[in-house]
Amino acid sequence: MRLMFLLILSENFFSRGFILSDQDLTATLLLTCPDRKGLVSRISHFIFERGGNIVELDEHVESQEQRFFLRVVWDMKDFSVIPAQLNEVFFPMSKEFNAEWTVRLNSNKPRLAVFVSKHDHCLQELLWRQGLGDYDCDIRLIISNHKDLQWLAQRYQIPFHVFPITQENKIVQEKKELEMLEKEEINTIVLARYMQILSPKFIFRYSNRILNIHHSFLPAFAGSDPYKQAYERGVKIIGATSHYVTTQLDAGPIIEQDIIRISHKDSLEEFIRKGRDLERLVLSRALRLHLQDRILVYGNKTIIFE
Amino acid sequence: MRLMFLLILSENFFSRGFILSDQDLTATLLLTCPDRKGLVSRISHFIFERGGNIVELDEHVESQEQRFFLRVVWDMKDFSVIPAQLNEVFFPMSKEFNAEWTVRLNSNKPRLAVFVSKHDHCLQELLWRQGLGDYDCDIRLIISNHKDLQWLAQRYQIPFHVFPITQENKIVQEKKELEMLEKEEINTIVLARYMQILSPKFIFRYSNRILNIHHSFLPAFAGSDPYKQAYERGVKIIGATSHYVTTQLDAGPIIEQDIIRISHKDSLEEFIRKGRDLERLVLSRALRLHLQDRILVYGNKTIIFE
Amino acid sequence: MRLMFLLILSENFFSRGFILSDQDLTATLLLTCPDRKGLVSRISHFIFERGGNIVELDEHVESQEQRFFLRVVWDMKDFSVIPAQLNEVFFPMSKEFNAEWTVRLNSNKPRLAVFVSKHDHCLQELLWRQGLGDYDCDIRLIISNHKDLQWLAQRYQIPFHVFPITQENKIVQEKKELEMLEKEEINTIVLARYMQILSPKFIFRYSNRILNIHHSFLPAFAGSDPYKQAYERGVKIIGATSHYVTTQLDAGPIIEQDIIRISHKDSLEEFIRKGRDLERLVLSRALRLHLQDRILVYGNKTIIFE
Amino acid sequence: MRLMFLLILSENFFSRGFILSDQDLTATLLLTCPDRKGLVSRISHFIFERGGNIVELDEHVESQEQRFFLRVVWDMKDFSVIPAQLNEVFFPMSKEFNAEWTVRLNSNKPRLAVFVSKHDHCLQELLWRQGLGDYDCDIRLIISNHKDLQWLAQRYQIPFHVFPITQENKIVQEKKELEMLEKEEINTIVLARYMQILSPKFIFRYSNRILNIHHSFLPAFAGSDPYKQAYERGVKIIGATSHYVTTQLDAGPIIEQDIIRISHKDSLEEFIRKGRDLERLVLSRALRLHLQDRILVYGNKTIIFE
Repeated sequence: MRLMFLLILSENFFSRGFILSDQDLTATLLLTCPDRKGLVSRISHFIFERGGNIVELDEHVESQEQRFFLRVVWDMKDFSVIPAQLNEVFFPMSKEFNAEWTVRLNSNKPRLAVFVSKHDHCLQELLWRQGLGDYDCDIRLIISNHKDLQWLAQRYQIPFHVFPITQENKIVQEKKELEMLEKEEINTIVLARYMQILSPKFIFRYSNRILNIHHSFLPAFAGSDPYKQAYERGVKIIGATSHYVTTQLDAGPIIEQDIIRISHKDSLEEFIRKGRDLERLVLSRALRLHLQDRILVYGNKTIIFE
Repeated sequence: MRLMFLLILSENFFSRGFILSDQDLTATLLLTCPDRKGLVSRISHFIFERGGNIVELDEHVESQEQRFFLRVVWDMKDFSVIPAQLNEVFFPMSKEFNAEWTVRLNSNKPRLAVFVSKHDHCLQELLWRQGLGDYDCDIRLIISNHKDLQWLAQRYQIPFHVFPITQENKIVQEKKELEMLEKEEINTIVLARYMQILSPKFIFRYSNRILNIHHSFLPAFAGSDPYKQAYERGVKIIGATSHYVTTQLDAGPIIEQDIIRISHKDSLEEFIRKGRDLERLVLSRALRLHLQDRILVYGNKTIIFE
Repeated sequence: MRLMFLLILSENFFSRGFILSDQDLTATLLLTCPDRKGLVSRISHFIFERGGNIVELDEHVESQEQRFFLRVVWDMKDFSVIPAQLNEVFFPMSKEFNAEWTVRLNSNKPRLAVFVSKHDHCLQELLWRQGLGDYDCDIRLIISNHKDLQWLAQRYQIPFHVFPITQENKIVQEKKELEMLEKEEINTIVLARYMQILSPKFIFRYSNRILNIHHSFLPAFAGSDPYKQAYERGVKIIGATSHYVTTQLDAGPIIEQDIIRISHKDSLEEFIRKGRDLERLVLSRALRLHLQDRILVYGNKTIIFE
Repeated sequence: MRLMFLLILSENFFSRGFILSDQDLTATLLLTCPDRKGLVSRISHFIFERGGNIVELDEHVESQEQRFFLRVVWDMKDFSVIPAQLNEVFFPMSKEFNAEWTVRLNSNKPRLAVFVSKHDHCLQELLWRQGLGDYDCDIRLIISNHKDLQWLAQRYQIPFHVFPITQENKIVQEKKELEMLEKEEINTIVLARYMQILSPKFIFRYSNRILNIHHSFLPAFAGSDPYKQAYERGVKIIGATSHYVTTQLDAGPIIEQDIIRISHKDSLEEFIRKGRDLERLVLSRALRLHLQDRILVYGNKTIIFE
């Protein structure tokens, strides 16, 4: 169980000149707790009686384990609770339910760091989509163990920091990275074909908030060179998988997967070329789900409210 | 707007020896009404305070038209209202909401009639799935305008009735068919490649309860010989579409669609052969969605709570 | 390398009253050899100068390994070589090329044995498709380690033989099975959810002629209970794989794979239900490719001329 | 029948310092003619006896119309005919076969013009893929009826020309465009969401060499606003189609199509957002097929040698 008790309300919320009467202000509650009678009724009533108009509600019961999962989005226009008190107001009920939960205002955009190495396709895709308005987030910085993609960061005017990684300096470099992430109040990390393994310490710090793209249909072909593995096995379909990073390599909770057909005509180079399109689409979709608070992690699985 | 106010409680409900304490008894409410604040809260609370445990809840708001759609399934075990009074109990609230709705007990199985002509693949698929337990329904009878598939009906011991249709006898024959359907208390009709056009009178009688399979990706290639049309147009993908039948040919609310790739190597015969697999799968899935009360029709569209 | 030098001309070819002037008589040559200049030219010329009209020709060069693969189908109507001498006539050229090859007349239908256990869906599908004319073969017999599916064999009037398998009797039972297969001149075996592992001896006897369906996207979830494994891993897509059986479990040359999306809403039962459709379609397609001589095996991969 | 007799050998072939002994020099022949015996044999022998090593050969016979289609790629390293004489050498045989054909050296890159309006996603994709080496071509210029995408052309340093189009100036503007295309020796035009209808005169000039992307699954939703049409029809799948432009709107030979699932949850904006990904992928794939000489047009259909 890795969900954290967390009200994401950045400190400078009001200082940014936020105006409460904003027509489009909504809040999203993600919650999981042991199942019991009346949960939907209680929570929806709680929002209703405070003047919130529910615009989206999705729930799921994992019947085997008697566990309840919920996502609610409501209009804050006439909501009687001010954003700064959301946390406080939900606390007693969530405690009663023994729930793990987060609530977030859509105006409070997630702050992202993207980690890359040398391949540009996933980063290209994220930056391009961000420009089109697909992601309601701030991409604050790009971190790499190589200089290769600096030009791309510059094109989009995003700070680019190089932290070369060796066996020896890894702990020191990660410490510096973490400080930088802390300072920038980063809450989501995207590994856009970052070819380094993060230390457990780093991973625990951003539990269920580091998204990775692995270029195979997991659990097939975990580890290195998945296209080569797939080519040698002679599969007829290749895939890509986006998952949350855990300390076990390529074994974290899966968010999104997709596949493409290949044939004996496809060389290893074609596997890589076709897989590239999968990787960027799968990672893009996973990130969008994450940024819209549509994912709850339970054990090693994801509940995704699409 | 074609949803009907309908509590499906067959008359012989209790005479069939139904026992209320049944562990697995659930009820499903499908409802649509103009959107307003507090609908989820009100309805879920209504069920909760009568002892019902909600096991599934899905809602959708069509924001442009300010319309609300809901599907709720709850456990009837501790529900304080007896099945026979469900209708009565929900009536005041639904009237207040100006809602169109149905409520059904899962123990009260839908009663089906399947219409066929000469092709057996869709009927084969339905009967086979029924045998596997995919459909919680009773297939009461099979009606055809030809004798060809009698052997298949006999194999599954389902009454098979032949009503040959000509331009002249159509009205008379449909009248007989309707009487038979009435007598058998049929509430869902599946056209499993039935190659006759039903009259408006027939269609209105079973509004949004006649499922058809059309062997093209609608709205492309409506009408006759869709595979021939597709072959001549030189498309690279063919499809199949299951929809509710309306008086406008092949233009009713779409329930399910799927496609398969084809190439220049595929002859018209291959289009038909590959399409066959699509047809039976698409119709099967559509029927399952219908039988599980997962479909709400609004205008010419379907809201499908999967 | 497992291709066998094999001219499939059943002994009772002429005794069946075969008439050479048959309009639709075609021959199919499958061939692989080290690549060299002029192979297509030599082989196509060889057929042309004997009066054969090539109706399909597909070739592939595995450039890394400098290996050539070919499938040619030609019209035998004006071919100057009689079927009984095809083998003899091709022999010198194939020897020169150091080729492995088979040639088959389409009139000489493959003779199949289907192995099953308790699940009927794959067998149902094969028998149903056979009835529709999808497969140009003779299904000679069905072998099972259980009696459960006898009714289905009887329905299609195909001999059904039960060979219960235990740890102790396996070798003896397989010997009896092999004798039966020999006697019936079986050349292709389909494991349609046969839940026993064949011995190496059995497998070598029918090298690259035993098709299996595994209910996962191989190499993910090899071994037993793949749906359970997939469910527990939390994948978003499940698959099925048809492959030739080798002595290494679930690791033989892959013929066909396909997938279907699943979500957190799907219980293990739903995995099984949805997977069932994949299994029967994937096995059906693989068998059709095999029966049309479209598959060449090289190492642990398949070259498929679709 | 629109294939043109065309040997694409740019005039400045040798002046560019082409060296015949280039290891990777290949030639591709695309040919269609009435079917007759011995075509594969004759053509492959023709190449073989001049020292060419065939690396790819695909053929297709449209049996209903008795028409033959062929694509052959061969290694020119030891070919006894110099590139400048390819045309001359193939002429007699092609005349004998009454064939339409083209032959192209891979070193002789296609010269492209891309037409755009305001949407950038398709152009982004093409330029990005070109940078990755997916396309073996020269993108010589970008033409638009608006200034909006000038920044993108500048980023990739490709000449950008604006030709505003009105009802009145259309003929004049197209004349200028054609002169520019002529001058730049353009042989392929890509309409990357170009929102103007080209005149028949323009289209005839580049018959089967203008690729368009239409944002629907043709023939469904031809014409304007296909996403709006799809949204209003309530389809469950949307598509995109790349086709050659003919004088009949959205009715030319289809090269590639693909689809994506949508649901009642998707607003019109989501249709557009999801469709965007389809459009750029489908157009990209179609262009690649075209640039690799894999497409033969016959009537209103394409034969695609993948």
